[in-house]
This record gives sequence, C-alpha cells and structure tokens, in this order.
Amino acid sequence: MDATTQSPAAGTPATSLQDIIAHAKEYGFVFPSSEIYDGLQAVYDYGQNGVELKNNLKTLWWKAMTQLNDNVVGIDAAIFMHPLTWKASGHVDSFNDPMIDNKDSKKRYRADQLLEGKAEQYEKAGDEARGQALRNELGRLQGAEDMEGLRNLIISEGIVCPISGTANWTEVRQFNLMFSTQVGSVAEDASLIYLRPETAQGIFVNFLNVQKTGRMKIPFGIAQIGKAFRNEIVARQFTFRMREFEQMEMQFFVRPGTEMDWYERWRDTRLNFHKAVGLPAEKLKFHIHEKLAHYANAAVDIEYEFPFGFREIEGIHSRTDFDLKSHQELSRKKMQYFDPEINQNYIPYVVETSVGADRLFLAVFCNAYTEEVVGEGDTQKTRTYLKLHPALAPVKAAVFPLVRKDGLPEKAQQIVKQLRSEFRVIYEERDAIGKRYTRQDLIGTPFCIAVDYQTLEDDTVTIRYRDTTEQVRVPISELKQRIGHDVSMERILEKL
Amino acid sequence: MDATTQSPAAGTPATSLQDIIAHAKEYGFVFPSSEIYDGLQAVYDYGQNGVELKNNLKTLWWKAMTQLNDNVVGIDAAIFMHPLTWKASGHVDSFNDPMIDNKDSKKRYRADQLLEGKAEQYEKAGDEARGQALRNELGRLQGAEDMEGLRNLIISEGIVCPISGTANWTEVRQFNLMFSTQVGSVAEDASLIYLRPETAQGIFVNFLNVQKTGRMKIPFGIAQIGKAFRNEIVARQFTFRMREFEQMEMQFFVRPGTEMDWYERWRDTRLNFHKAVGLPAEKLKFHIHEKLAHYANAAVDIEYEFPFGFREIEGIHSRTDFDLKSHQELSRKKMQYFDPEINQNYIPYVVETSVGADRLFLAVFCNAYTEEVVGEGDTQKTRTYLKLHPALAPVKAAVFPLVRKDGLPEKAQQIVKQLRSEFRVIYEERDAIGKRYTRQDLIGTPFCIAVDYQTLEDDTVTIRYRDTTEQVRVPISELKQRIGHDVSMERILEKL
Repeated sequence: MDATTQSPAAGTPATSLQDIIAHAKEYGFVFPSSEIYDGLQAVYDYGQNGVELKNNLKTLWWKAMTQLNDNVVGIDAAIFMHPLTWKASGHVDSFNDPMIDNKDSKKRYRADQLLEGKAEQYEKAGDEARGQALRNELGRLQGAEDMEGLRNLIISEGIVCPISGTANWTEVRQFNLMFSTQVGSVAEDASLIYLRPETAQGIFVNFLNVQKTGRMKIPFGIAQIGKAFRNEIVARQFTFRMREFEQMEMQFFVRPGTEMDWYERWRDTRLNFHKAVGLPAEKLKFHIHEKLAHYANAAVDIEYEFPFGFREIEGIHSRTDFDLKSHQELSRKKMQYFDPEINQNYIPYVVETSVGADRLFLAVFCNAYTEEVVGEGDTQKTRTYLKLHPALAPVKAAVFPLVRKDGLPEKAQQIVKQLRSEFRVIYEERDAIGKRYTRQDLIGTPFCIAVDYQTLEDDTVTIRYRDTTEQVRVPISELKQRIGHDVSMERILEKL
Repeated sequence: MDATTQSPAAGTPATSLQDIIAHAKEYGFVFPSSEIYDGLQAVYDYGQNGVELKNNLKTLWWKAMTQLNDNVVGIDAAIFMHPLTWKASGHVDSFNDPMIDNKDSKKRYRADQLLEGKAEQYEKAGDEARGQALRNELGRLQGAEDMEGLRNLIISEGIVCPISGTANWTEVRQFNLMFSTQVGSVAEDASLIYLRPETAQGIFVNFLNVQKTGRMKIPFGIAQIGKAFRNEIVARQFTFRMREFEQMEMQFFVRPGTEMDWYERWRDTRLNFHKAVGLPAEKLKFHIHEKLAHYANAAVDIEYEFPFGFREIEGIHSRTDFDLKSHQELSRKKMQYFDPEINQNYIPYVVETSVGADRLFLAVFCNAYTEEVVGEGDTQKTRTYLKLHPALAPVKAAVFPLVRKDGLPEKAQQIVKQLRSEFRVIYEERDAIGKRYTRQDLIGTPFCIAVDYQTLEDDTVTIRYRDTTEQVRVPISELKQRIGHDVSMERILEKL
C-alpha cells in the first residue's frame, strides 16, 4: 500500500504475496489444508468464496474450449491410470529431481537449485559471465543425467548447507516426483499405480475412443480439467506450486506439418482468454522456451506478473507425435488416424495448451486485489476491494434492507427469491449499511441492492456499483435483466 | 427391448446393464480407463458426452445447494489431508473389510459377502428363516469384529471357493480400504498420507474457518463436490462401485436437539431434487437404516431402481456431534459455536446429505435410455434415444444444412455462431438428414435445427423435437430464446 497515492486510479503497486495470502484466508478464498492439525505442506483448500471464483474460471475455460469450438470436445479421465501409461510417457524413467543431503544437518536439497542459487549470487555480485558459465555447466550435467558431476560441481563451487554450514554432502540421487499407491488387496497381488502427474495422458490414451465414437475429423481437440499430483520437494509461493493441483489441458490433434500454424493460433487464442478474464496486457507476456523438452518442437509459456515476478500460468507446446507413438509402441494398439482428405494414415501431431487452474486463480485474485486511498485530510482512508469481472465474482449481488423493521427485511428477501434461480445473490441485514458494503467489496461482489422506505412506495431500489461506489435508483422489475446481463459468462464468451 | 411393445409410451422394461454399458461406450459417455492397456479394474473415464452430462448434474446440485439456500456455502478441500484427520474420523482403525483367501485357488473374497451369498441361497430355496438367521449371526460377528467367528461360520456353512471347489480357507483378516501414499522426499522423513475415502472430513476440519470467515449462523451448511477413493476388493456394476469416485456432499450444522427436524427436511428436499432431474417417483424409494453406524442417530438412503435392482444413490445421515467432537479431541482446537440466540456454546450436530455423483449419473443415464418400437408391419423398427432433461443433455442443439451446397452450410454455420455463446450447439453435415437425427437421438440432443431452401428465402428453420420427433417451423430470430429457455438450468432450479 502506497500512502502517498491520492487517486483511486493509481492502483496498488506495492501489494505483496503476504497481503494476498492474508486476504485469501480472512475472506474465505483459500485456507491452509487441515489447518486444525497444523496444516499439510504445499496443500491448500478453497473456501466458500474461493471455490466459487475457481469454479467460474473452470466453467469459463470449459465453455471457451468445448462450446465455442466445433472441433473441441471434453473428457474426464480418472486420476488412476494403468501404470504402463507412465512408462510410455517417460514419467517412470525420467520425471526426477536430483536430490542431495547434508550429513550434518540431515537436510535435503535439490542439487540443481543449490547450483542455480550460486549462479544467482555471482550475477548479483556483478559477475554475469561466471554465473552464466555455471548455469551452462549445470544444464550440461542435467542433460547427461550426470549425478556425480552435479555433486562434484557443488563441492568445487564451495556450496555449503545453510543450516550446518558444512560441505559434508551425500551422493546426488534421482528422486521420482510421482506419488504411488497400491491397488488391490495385499502386497503380493496388489499393483503399484501412480497418481497422475499431469492430465494430458488421460487424453492420449482416450484419443481413439473419442475420435471414433465422436466421429471427429482432424484437426480436433480434447479438453480436460482435473487434479494432478507431484511430490515437490521444495514447494512454495502459496498456491503457485502445490503437491496437489488442478490442470486445464487441451490436446489438439493435427496433420503432421501443420503443427506450427496451430501452435501459433492457439498461443494467440489463449493469450486473448487471459485478457478476457481481466488480466491486463502489460502484466502478461510470452516466454519462448529455448531449451525444449525431448518431445517438443516448439514451446511457449504465458506468464503473468505475480507479486513475486513473472511466472508461468499456461504453457503451449507443440508435442509432435511423441506421446501417441509411445503409447502405440507399448500398447501395440494402432494410434493412427485415416485422413480422408489426403487419403493417408498417420499418427497425428499434437499441440497442447495447459493452464494451471490454481495459478490462473491466483493471478486473477492478485490482479483483482485493489487498495485505494479515498477521501482527503482527516477522512482519508484505504478502501480495499476485489475488482473481479462480475461473471467471475463469488457473489453476484447482495440485497440489504436499510433497517431491520417496517417490512424492509421481508421486501429484501422477496427480491432475493426472485433473483436466486438466475445467479448467486445473498441477503444481509447485520451491521450498518456502510459496513455491509465494505464486506461485499472485500469479496468482490459487483452489485449491492439496498431496500429502503421508498422501495415500499414505488418498488425501486438502489444499486451500488462496487468499482465506482456509484448508486443508481432502478425499478425492482429491471434487476434480473440488468444484473443478469452483466454477470453472465456469455458476455465474456462473445468476445472470444 | 420388448419387441411386442407397440406404443412409445410403453417404455423400456427390459433394458439390461449390458445395454447401458454398451451404449455408454459406443456413444462417448463412459470408457473403461486406460483401455489401450486392457483397462484398470473398477476405474472408468467419462467420454465427450458423459463429461457434459456429469458436469451438468454437478452444476445443478451445486446451484441447488449454494445458490438456492442463503445458509449453504461451498468449499473445495484437497484430496490430501493431514493423516490425523483419518484417525479422528475412525477410518484408520475401522474402515476395513474382512478378507479370506482360498489356499488352493489363491483367490481372495470378502468373508461377509460369502456369507451373504449363502443366506441368499437359503432364501431363494424358500428357507427364509435360515437365511435370516445366518444374516443375524453375520451382523453379530461383524459388530463384534470377530474374525475367527466369521471363518468358523464359513466353514460350518460348508462354503467352498467357486474356483477351486474346496474349503481350504486362510484366516479372516481385516483389510483397510484407504489408499495410502508417501509424501516427502524419502522413506525416512516422508509421511504416510491417505487419499480421502470420503469428502465429508474436508468439510469438518474447515468448519470453523468457514463459519468465522463467512460469519455463518447456525443452522448452516457446507457443500462440496470432489473425488474420493476406496480400495474396493470386489468392485462391480459398472460405475456404481468404483475405486475412484466422486461425491457431492453437504454437511448441515444445527443446534443439538433440532437435528431430527432438519434430517426430515433435507430427506424430502433431496428426494425432490432427484425427481426434478427426471427420475420418476416410482423408481425412487427411501430405505431407512435399521442398523445405524456408531456416529449416527438416524439414516436413510434414497434408492433408485437400476437394471440390477434398487440401490443407494444418496444417503441422508444424522451424524450427531461425532465428527466435530473427535476432531476437537485430537486437534485440541475448540470446534464450538457460540449461539447468540440461546447464549450458549456448543458443538453443533450435523445432518449430512451425500450423493454419489457417478451413481446419479448412472441413474439418469439408465432412466433416459429409451427403446421404442415405431412404425407398423414391415416398416416397424426400434428407435433408441436418450430422454434427458434438456438442461442436462450434452448437446443442446444440432444444426443441419439439408444439403451441402447452395449456401445452406454457410447459413447453418451462421446460426451455430449466433447460438454458441449461449449454449452448446454443434454443426453436422455428414450423411443423410435422417441419419443425423438418429445420431443426435442416441446422445440425447433435445433439438435439431434443419436449414433448407426455404430458410434462404424467409429466415425460418424447422426445429425437430427429440422426444416426439415432431417438426415445427420457426423464425431464426426466435431460436435463441425458445431453445435457451428450455435448456436453461434455471427452469429446474425454479421448481426446487
């Protein structure tokens, strides 16, 4: 918060992640998981307002994919999949982080992060060249999966454990990030299965089922929203990196050779989506991958400027035919498509768009969080509100009786009843009306409707707008349409 | 299918579960999980039409809970929870099935199911008394957790393994149904956590967070939709009993002493919901629990008549203060509410409503599946369609150009564009128009819109109604409103 700011338009340059976390908890958006048992690291629960905002984002993405595009359909594959899925995808063999322990402190670290930290130190001290050289060497060793090399580099760089201060390090070992569990009745006949580390493979193994039963013609896409799980060792930055998280992924199957065209189209379409949910253009940027994953021939992230810097909220990847081909090899089921236009069978290429639902939530939440200094002199105070798009707000309208007598509460509740089958509207009569406005501001309710004595005479109410605090008198009979229009997701979809 | 049925009204008495499974797979509703790897037992994926139907049911339940009730809010707690949660809930100690192995066949069975099967045999053979006596004894042994007693009863009843034909049985052992996994980096400092076997506990541990940050006054409810996992040994009946499944649960917190009143209200409210989604009254019934779980003082199931008989789709349970009290004891956090109306602190009582989302899906799907004999004599044929409520149908409308020339496709696509921001509408030009109607019938599309030469002259189209196959000519300008009205979820919500 910048106390020198005089105008509401000046925005909130100094919002910290701590402000965001505190607001998210205090107003029912995000709680630490199992908090009464002192929490579970890197796992969070969405509260009564958070779940509505997140659901609205998920619904909007779903509609943008499966409703706006004739050639994109959805699926909902299970979290549990046959374990060979993860053999084919490469996760069993190479979804690893290199870990190292300090023998004195017994603390464990990611070897690559220790080395990156060192490179950063060099760079901060002005020695860019040495920093870059270290990063290059790290990249080379990781590419070669040279664990001994990583350890030697840690030692030769003189990196010590921040707890014990010693360089008494163990070997570097690969640690697989997939969670596993046993399915079946006892160890001897049970199978080891994994919690999916990404939703994409649920789409690939169903490629032919969807293509055939849906009579899909290439190019077409399959979209999915669902949980994924990664046993992150160093999880941090609130809901940005969690062990349990939700993805919104779409795999778009195309004729080989056309993938770069589709890659560019989807990259632009997806950027527009983030703008349409209210993220400002200047806080969004593309980050093109220079080092590509083995399966990709092009990759770009859409990054949003969080309080902790620009970070990925979505990735668009041209994955070639890597996944379908791997599944074909391992399952011995033909993952081919017959293309009637060119009279050929082929394994399609894939362009993936993959959003972190929790990251998008966090971006939208951070962006909506607004502190404004209002008033002047002695009456100056800070007004905090969530500037959410009305279609995304957890509560669309709150109806207040001015006082709790003379039939005003009954009148207000009648209005709630009229509106509630259309959108989420709540009734509130506690405290002074100013306090009620404030509470709705804090959760981002775009419209407050006040019922006063005049209402009893002429069936009009005041609508108070969250962003401007302006109040307008309107007939009750117009409420459903006026508010319904603004809070409707269709208004966003029309722009996409 | 009853070939003697002459009239569409006669319904489909003979639909088997096999018909349902085949239709679900062939038309993109439900696929076996990881089918290319020969599947994963008791796990299923929702296909392109199934996911839309299931999402519509989830959205409707969510709105019925959190939008129609001022005092019900939602949350979305993580699947991962602190392990002490499951100690407090009793799942660590007693969420078990008694298992027995046959030493010759190496096959494993649930001891209670072997005995229930035997009781059923007696009953089918006319010896009701002996069947009942066996069931009573089974109940007694299970209540006493007498594993040796169960084994002795299996032996004394002469039960043999259906594979080996022998009674060469192992001991009976308790087998916990929770899936577990390790969180953290290696065995020595990793923690054993569980995949939640029910969503309810995510609500209980967040009770105070929601109550305080949402300023909720008792009575109030917290609703949640989410995945749960049970390591079922004998999973069967398609999506009815799966290892990974989805629950829609609402825990309603009340003043102790008022719980029976709320229990009855929610029981009736929930029955109405199932009727509103289209399940006929005669296929729904209450099943009151006579044997109550240790935490409950009243419990009733809402059962639907599946092709395999009446089975539970929802449970309404009066859970007393068991859960909150257990969490208070273990966490040493006060799970109390100060009730200003009676000026007292207390641990609230809880009335739970718990729907199996996959079961509701299956009930709605089975109920919608319709085979009718139409025509007479030589032209007689069977017409199959899904009689889904329009608000639940995966596709709301399909637009067809009569022919693929003369500007008809372009005109049809214009209509799709006009409608698609409002609801899910598809364009289809392949095959003869009769075939296109049939395909839409098979996935339950309520409206088909045909564009013909007259359309080019007067901007009218025909709407063909799925259930009656009746065709009506209407102006294009009326489509959005006419169809929009029928497919809107608000029409169902208004009735609740």
